[in-house]
Amino acid sequence: MKIGFIGLGNMGIPMAKNLIAAGYQLQVYNRTAEKADELEASAITKCNTPAEAAANVTVVISMLADDDTVKESVVGKDGILNTFQKGALHISMSTISPDIAQFLSDQHKAAGSSYLAAPVFGRPEAAAAKKLWVCVSGSKEDKETANPILECIGQGVVDFGEDAGGANVVKIAGNFMIMSSLEMMAEAFTLAEKFNLDRSKVAEFFGSTIFNAPIYQNYGRLIANKQYEPVGFKARLGYKDARLAFKLAQQSETPMPLGTLIHNRLLTAVAKGLGDRDWVEAVGRGVTDDAGV
Amino acid sequence: MKIGFIGLGNMGIPMAKNLIAAGYQLQVYNRTAEKADELEASAITKCNTPAEAAANVTVVISMLADDDTVKESVVGKDGILNTFQKGALHISMSTISPDIAQFLSDQHKAAGSSYLAAPVFGRPEAAAAKKLWVCVSGSKEDKETANPILECIGQGVVDFGEDAGGANVVKIAGNFMIMSSLEMMAEAFTLAEKFNLDRSKVAEFFGSTIFNAPIYQNYGRLIANKQYEPVGFKARLGYKDARLAFKLAQQSETPMPLGTLIHNRLLTAVAKGLGDRDWVEAVGRGVTDDAGV
Amino acid sequence: MKIGFIGLGNMGIPMAKNLIAAGYQLQVYNRTAEKADELEASAITKCNTPAEAAANVTVVISMLADDDTVKESVVGKDGILNTFQKGALHISMSTISPDIAQFLSDQHKAAGSSYLAAPVFGRPEAAAAKKLWVCVSGSKEDKETANPILECIGQGVVDFGEDAGGANVVKIAGNFMIMSSLEMMAEAFTLAEKFNLDRSKVAEFFGSTIFNAPIYQNYGRLIANKQYEPVGFKARLGYKDARLAFKLAQQSETPMPLGTLIHNRLLTAVAKGLGDRDWVEAVGRGVTDDAGV
Amino acid sequence: MKIGFIGLGNMGIPMAKNLIAAGYQLQVYNRTAEKADELEASAITKCNTPAEAAANVTVVISMLADDDTVKESVVGKDGILNTFQKGALHISMSTISPDIAQFLSDQHKAAGSSYLAAPVFGRPEAAAAKKLWVCVSGSKEDKETANPILECIGQGVVDFGEDAGGANVVKIAGNFMIMSSLEMMAEAFTLAEKFNLDRSKVAEFFGSTIFNAPIYQNYGRLIANKQYEPVGFKARLGYKDARLAFKLAQQSETPMPLGTLIHNRLLTAVAKGLGDRDWVEAVGRGVTDDAGV
Repeated sequence: MKIGFIGLGNMGIPMAKNLIAAGYQLQVYNRTAEKADELEASAITKCNTPAEAAANVTVVISMLADDDTVKESVVGKDGILNTFQKGALHISMSTISPDIAQFLSDQHKAAGSSYLAAPVFGRPEAAAAKKLWVCVSGSKEDKETANPILECIGQGVVDFGEDAGGANVVKIAGNFMIMSSLEMMAEAFTLAEKFNLDRSKVAEFFGSTIFNAPIYQNYGRLIANKQYEPVGFKARLGYKDARLAFKLAQQSETPMPLGTLIHNRLLTAVAKGLGDRDWVEAVGRGVTDDAGV
Repeated sequence: MKIGFIGLGNMGIPMAKNLIAAGYQLQVYNRTAEKADELEASAITKCNTPAEAAANVTVVISMLADDDTVKESVVGKDGILNTFQKGALHISMSTISPDIAQFLSDQHKAAGSSYLAAPVFGRPEAAAAKKLWVCVSGSKEDKETANPILECIGQGVVDFGEDAGGANVVKIAGNFMIMSSLEMMAEAFTLAEKFNLDRSKVAEFFGSTIFNAPIYQNYGRLIANKQYEPVGFKARLGYKDARLAFKLAQQSETPMPLGTLIHNRLLTAVAKGLGDRDWVEAVGRGVTDDAGV
Repeated sequence: MKIGFIGLGNMGIPMAKNLIAAGYQLQVYNRTAEKADELEASAITKCNTPAEAAANVTVVISMLADDDTVKESVVGKDGILNTFQKGALHISMSTISPDIAQFLSDQHKAAGSSYLAAPVFGRPEAAAAKKLWVCVSGSKEDKETANPILECIGQGVVDFGEDAGGANVVKIAGNFMIMSSLEMMAEAFTLAEKFNLDRSKVAEFFGSTIFNAPIYQNYGRLIANKQYEPVGFKARLGYKDARLAFKLAQQSETPMPLGTLIHNRLLTAVAKGLGDRDWVEAVGRGVTDDAGV
Repeated sequence: MKIGFIGLGNMGIPMAKNLIAAGYQLQVYNRTAEKADELEASAITKCNTPAEAAANVTVVISMLADDDTVKESVVGKDGILNTFQKGALHISMSTISPDIAQFLSDQHKAAGSSYLAAPVFGRPEAAAAKKLWVCVSGSKEDKETANPILECIGQGVVDFGEDAGGANVVKIAGNFMIMSSLEMMAEAFTLAEKFNLDRSKVAEFFGSTIFNAPIYQNYGRLIANKQYEPVGFKARLGYKDARLAFKLAQQSETPMPLGTLIHNRLLTAVAKGLGDRDWVEAVGRGVTDDAGV
């Protein structure tokens, strides 16, 4: 079976590899074309536009950076809707705003195709290991169509209802929770350090007892050790997600003091020139710098 | 073997029961004497003062509410030091300030006895199930003496060095992390609710995937369902712990913006008259009230 | 001389009256047409659209609620640009975003007319008393054209350069400072109240010594007395301005922790249903409610 | 008339000079004795202890750094109470906690003497110019005794009731308001700077219109120009005052989110090694550093 695949970034590449491993042929499009060279040549067709990638397939997947890029890839001059078949399905896996998701869902419907929100949790390593968690929202039929494909990419697919934007709200809320966890650990470990305790020992204790979840184990180690390289997820992208959370807070009239704290932490990192560093550094260094250590 | 046991509150009672089940005889003291009636009569001797409970034993355990109470129980008119044998050990399991721990350690040393900090993580149910995590700090010998006893109470004993106050720093940092997690979940779930998502479904998703730790599973369910009874840990005590975290931040010159956010959340609950409600309600209702839901 | 005047709200009405008193004839437009009945009939011509109000005049003034309304009044179906003469000047006195100001300035330029940002400081009473402060930014010639008109409205006109949006940044920064002052006083007076001091006495002391500026005298009295009626400036509009400040903080990468605190204070008031109450109540009650008094 | 005067710091020296100019003879004590050389030799008697300075006078004034120093100067080994006459009055002008004020008032009463809280607003220049504002609280008789003396030091004396600590609450609330004003201006001016506006021009506009109070004029200029020298009031002392405000917030159960923001701003400056710089720098640089300018 042939699928369109748009967006070969840090996340897109391992996801595409898993689809190829599962036997799919991919029509790939990426702004920087040479990224496709990381994929097995015989399994792909390189395309010059999203429209080309979406031609003559019943499913297209996109994994892009932000609201504007996704919007452009659908309704832009060279967007998916120019070539997409009636009845075909766009599985949109990017972290975007729920209102953009709703807008794109409406555009697809008007064009006779359909849209499924399917944002994921997990860093590139998790994508490579097929360990992503996929949140979906949209119509029942679209979920049924998407399921076998998504199962080649992640370890679980969780359903968040019919609203086009529902899964995106969960994704944004989750990223807010992750960033809050980074802040929480950075403050706790720095406090411990100031009292002459070993940051790593404290991180290990919490990560193996009451906070024994991957977030605390993996990020906990990085924060404890002030290990900020290699860059996995850029502070700039974390800031984008913090802005999304803040936008949702405004749209829904939900005061989120912790959401704003996180927003300002990431904004500060970006303003200070750390936008291209890992978001763990943005938070971790933010806290230790302010503490003078 | 006979042990002194001071403080039969929500935590002290199940801990004492586990010690009795392990074969220890207890000399118990509690401000409200009748609490001792919950323990097996044949296994205890009721005492009228901490001093009495500490007489003629080589180990005394205390599990009390706050700095002042612990201090009074050691150096007060009827305190432990009035009767404690040379070479005997005080295992202090309360959540107190590291500087008070250091002070008490010094007092014990001057009197020829010794002090081991051994604060615990876990609610009363965990105490009953012998599932507490115990953090210890103090001298090597005292840890060796304490270990077999502490293993009757918890599922693990973790060593945080020689500083009298070290384990208390970890305990206070941990409670700060728990309260921050409550805030994080309350904000995330309320945001989701405002977008017509099911709070419980969101909680369950995070608690079974990237946040699959007890904190997020147990508290997550309570916050998602706005289930604030029965009261397990009072907001007033949570506020006490938030104050301790803030005090440590000042002492060590560690700016903790999330620590202050949590402090103010708990303070607000107490100021509004919710001091005797569960700390989950303090945070959960604080967030939903501000969001008008 | 005849001027177009668009927007007869709480601010627009007294401003229009002052222009009439100074001898100007006005072509007025307001969404709710009957508001014009508050003006002297012989001095006005009622118009049905912004376009009509802008026809055959060399100057049009607008005083509207927000970005979208101002944009619509210029480039909308019935907007100013449909009828505006070449060389005519639009004096835009609303509190709007600098980027919208820049956009409108560009649109005017393309159409052969011009745009001057002229937002004001002062409540309706100040407008009535000709006590507004006007901040202007735009071209030198436009300022010269506008000056004699603006002097009929305010007690001073201050120049903030050539950037179309400059004056709006000052206006938004100023509203942020006013809201911060409300918060500051609400916290200080509530603290004093809790220590059994007389809020009014404290307000009066500061307002007549180190904080002897109108902001502290006038708002200080309202906050001290918890006097929240009549409603002068709605919490909803204050929240709009707090959002503008936050948007500018994001656009310019300026972390503003106090800006976000204020944003959340106003958002909370709106979420709790106080959007149509005075912004002083939004802040004042927010603080006292949280303090349980 | 002879008066005891304890504490010849930045504030004490100009105050003492004004008393001498008004004809008083002073028995002076300062920890660093040579500071007294700045005063006219014929008008002073140098003392070696507070007790000496308080001997044989009916009034002693103290102007010291913090709670502990003031306490020591009264009830310490060489404290005032060792020599103070029955019926004599201690005018305590330092910025201290209200509970310490109450404690000292009680101690004086028990010793047959009395205590008047009289903290002041104003920097050293204001002290030199006799432009301080004095807040008093205590008994009516003590105020009557103190008034003619205080009028030689300040431009006004304002009465805040009978509670020993009342005037101190006002002083601490006022310092919180000043620090909040610094933060407010630093954020507003930095936002303006990022939009290419002239910080000084913005400061001047606000300081001469809606914020035309000394606080905004004087500090506004310093913040706008990033002029942080000479050091007038150290960040360390500002932090001390922010801690006092925070302590009062806890004692009285008054959530003060802005109070905690300010607290963390000053704490951050101290943690980063700026404790001995001016508090204006602590806030001003804190904001610009975070904004990357």
